[in-house]
Amino acid sequence: MKNKVNREIPDEILASTGYKPFESVEYGHQVNQRVAPKVRATTGPSKVVESIDKIVEETVRDGMTISFHHHFREGDFVFNMVMRSIIDHGLKDLTLAPSSLTNVMNDIVVEAIEKGVVTNITSSGMRGSLGDVVSHGALKNPVIFRSHGGRARAIENGDIKIDVAFLGVPNADEMGNANGMNGETAFGSLGYALMDAQYANTLVLITDDLKPYPNTPASIKQTQVDYVVKVDKVGDPDKIGSGATRFTKDPKELQIAKMVNDVIIHSPYFKEGFSFQTGSGGAALAVTRFLRQAMLDNHITASFALGGITKPTIDLLEEGLVKKIMDVQDFDKGAAFSMKSNPNQQEIDASWYADPANKGAMVDKLDVAILSALEIDTKFNVNVMSGSDGVIRGAIGGHQDAATAKLTIISAPLVRGRIATIVPDVTTVITPGDSIDVVVTEIGLAINPKRTDLIEALSKVPGLPIYTIEELQERAQKIVGTPEPLQFTDRVVALAEYRDGTLIDVIKQVKD
Amino acid sequence: MKNKVNREIPDEILASTGYKPFESVEYGHQVNQRVAPKVRATTGPSKVVESIDKIVEETVRDGMTISFHHHFREGDFVFNMVMRSIIDHGLKDLTLAPSSLTNVMNDIVVEAIEKGVVTNITSSGMRGSLGDVVSHGALKNPVIFRSHGGRARAIENGDIKIDVAFLGVPNADEMGNANGMNGETAFGSLGYALMDAQYANTLVLITDDLKPYPNTPASIKQTQVDYVVKVDKVGDPDKIGSGATRFTKDPKELQIAKMVNDVIIHSPYFKEGFSFQTGSGGAALAVTRFLRQAMLDNHITASFALGGITKPTIDLLEEGLVKKIMDVQDFDKGAAFSMKSNPNQQEIDASWYADPANKGAMVDKLDVAILSALEIDTKFNVNVMSGSDGVIRGAIGGHQDAATAKLTIISAPLVRGRIATIVPDVTTVITPGDSIDVVVTEIGLAINPKRTDLIEALSKVPGLPIYTIEELQERAQKIVGTPEPLQFTDRVVALAEYRDGTLIDVIKQVKD
Repeated sequence: MKNKVNREIPDEILASTGYKPFESVEYGHQVNQRVAPKVRATTGPSKVVESIDKIVEETVRDGMTISFHHHFREGDFVFNMVMRSIIDHGLKDLTLAPSSLTNVMNDIVVEAIEKGVVTNITSSGMRGSLGDVVSHGALKNPVIFRSHGGRARAIENGDIKIDVAFLGVPNADEMGNANGMNGETAFGSLGYALMDAQYANTLVLITDDLKPYPNTPASIKQTQVDYVVKVDKVGDPDKIGSGATRFTKDPKELQIAKMVNDVIIHSPYFKEGFSFQTGSGGAALAVTRFLRQAMLDNHITASFALGGITKPTIDLLEEGLVKKIMDVQDFDKGAAFSMKSNPNQQEIDASWYADPANKGAMVDKLDVAILSALEIDTKFNVNVMSGSDGVIRGAIGGHQDAATAKLTIISAPLVRGRIATIVPDVTTVITPGDSIDVVVTEIGLAINPKRTDLIEALSKVPGLPIYTIEELQERAQKIVGTPEPLQFTDRVVALAEYRDGTLIDVIKQVKD
Repeated sequence: MKNKVNREIPDEILASTGYKPFESVEYGHQVNQRVAPKVRATTGPSKVVESIDKIVEETVRDGMTISFHHHFREGDFVFNMVMRSIIDHGLKDLTLAPSSLTNVMNDIVVEAIEKGVVTNITSSGMRGSLGDVVSHGALKNPVIFRSHGGRARAIENGDIKIDVAFLGVPNADEMGNANGMNGETAFGSLGYALMDAQYANTLVLITDDLKPYPNTPASIKQTQVDYVVKVDKVGDPDKIGSGATRFTKDPKELQIAKMVNDVIIHSPYFKEGFSFQTGSGGAALAVTRFLRQAMLDNHITASFALGGITKPTIDLLEEGLVKKIMDVQDFDKGAAFSMKSNPNQQEIDASWYADPANKGAMVDKLDVAILSALEIDTKFNVNVMSGSDGVIRGAIGGHQDAATAKLTIISAPLVRGRIATIVPDVTTVITPGDSIDVVVTEIGLAINPKRTDLIEALSKVPGLPIYTIEELQERAQKIVGTPEPLQFTDRVVALAEYRDGTLIDVIKQVKD
């Protein structure tokens, strides 16, 4: 059958998984029974264990679901240490349920798949060699991709049941009180990991810095922790930041950023107390800079900035242009190190950030979101997951979640090399066009026709080049031509959930 | 049958309630399946409702369990406002499950009992007119008394299922982000209320101070809150503090405090990095002052102070003599107002404070606890619940919980007026003698015989008057004589749980 974004969902998938097809971006007021972990009472003076091997032997069994966070990003040592031990112990049929998978984790996950250690994965995304082998059918069962808010929802509602969570932290005491703010390998907010800490049956902290008891502030609390493993090094501080903290000099990116800024400041949402999420990457940082000037010029301050946080957003907080930062993740050292000293930088968990099934998430109050895309189609559907070759090379992240903002702007170049960004149909629908309001490219922008209010407001702005999405798509096609249709087998290798837990698309195995 | 503290527990009570009799102060490593609330998804710009009546109509039904916190203590306006509305709406058969009941709540609870609105109560304690009517059989079903840690355990394990929690807060935003630290009626830590916030199916905040969104720090998070009710005033700031923040001048109290201090500093626990809980009241504050001097004299600092916090303990923190304060409750304004500005004053919930069934509570790491008593018997059992007339007039509070410290000292006068404090058998066993190490009175101290190490250590201290507990009991009896035995009917009016959820004693209806 076809779901509401016109994607063919094989009946046998719906039957075998129990998924419902995607229907609507509106979640409504469903009542859900939350789940809770099994808790083993612990007393004793210390939970410290000196070896990962010992703890793997103690806690992991065939068929279990294990989890990790990705706050160390490309500087992560913990994932590889734990997975090495798990593979070497000959464990089988595990479900891997990290908050996301970064490139530094690829090789060992590929090995774990090849050896039958991992047969199920749920993640925000995957890239590189891992995306490649999964796209070619290496994993036994389909991957399940979930947004950050969707993962929080899935954990809270029992769709993901974590048996053992292995969470790396830059500091912890002997009982497990820990935070992400202090220490050499500080990454700031523990936002995604806080879900695992609350819901895992068994929680193992891995740290290289044992602090005197009691260690505070305690984002993860001793009441949640079963074991603390002391290792030499949890990560490489230089690779924890995303690196992209410099203002772009790329004229195309600057052009897009300026136009995104024009859209925001001429929208009805740019007023005292507005809120925004900009994300990372050179263009996003440029938007933040333009926005700063616009806020100064118009004497406007923002009530909060949301999401993955960067230093330029911290600067706005310190300047008083942003009143609060609601911080689920920090993208660079500047943002990470600010958290411990600035009480207006509030750490939030993934549920508070974006779970559609809770009593109100930050994204529900978000005015403006600026998001990226691999592809956007003429129905405004967005793909952030698969390349134009059909291979998995992306992550949902908070895309579906932040896209529920009142004004969601996709910023993307019209083409990338010989590949069109605006296309007739995206390879994989991740974020439904219903939640996208404006697409900005370097040559101009397109407004979702259902947003007649925005069309009216933005049409009045002198010099703003407004096209229909079809016009943009045709322009792209003129530049790069019409690609050959992709060839897939019938085998489904990945399922893409919408944030509410319905199935928005499936990804099939690429034909060699 | 008789339980392990030799208390007669009627078989029909065990049969009808499913309780197990108290066995041991050791909890061990039981694995418990935690419970979780039902959560109704909420989206929309605001949860603010202008009337308590409206919210009572919307949320409360006959037979439900409703809860409150007692952080406003005798300055609480919220309990009376909500209960007034509940009574006026003619609701029936409610279970009242507050963290405790203060005197300002007595009249309306008595009215609710008389009208059949409330037929079950679980609380840390009760006093005054309420204790009196319950002791005389007014409530339909037996009250269940639980310690703060025991209540946390009961909520987490589903023994207490809160349908609607009504929590007063000195500030909140339109979505329910709130804390206890800011505002005119600030009380500091929300420790007990955080359990209700996490586990109630429906959470109603009541505040008199609506803050701009998002309100941080958020001890209670919008993800937990269903409604925010704005009222004129949540409490009387002058009555929130316990008042007892002055150093005592009573020579008997000073004598006891000095001897308590002697016991501590000559115990093996008084060393760098030790931890303590002193509590409130004039004698406790005097202990804190003596202890301060001893720490200065011996160049010793404490790793943490725990429990209900007072200004003198904050002074130790600011002086560097205490490294961290782990704060479940603040007893005075000085402690309450310090929390927002001192990052080393960590707010902890009741589970973290004292739940025996979690992965490690603060009390498990506690070296020294100084506690009070209404009665202590020759088996070192302590009563903090019923008077010598058999009438309920106390509260378990954290007594059972903190008593698990390595060195638990009961500080109490030998007699109070014509009533002995040290008795052959306490009226009600609340804290088992197995967890009590030393009893200090103005004439001298008694050491639990099983603590041969303490007997040896303290016997060496010149001038420390050590007696057996029987000697102290006889001295008390000589002063006040032998009282007539109390007269009770066979009807059980209250059950006293030990912190692990077993039955440690029952309280019977007093004979008129």
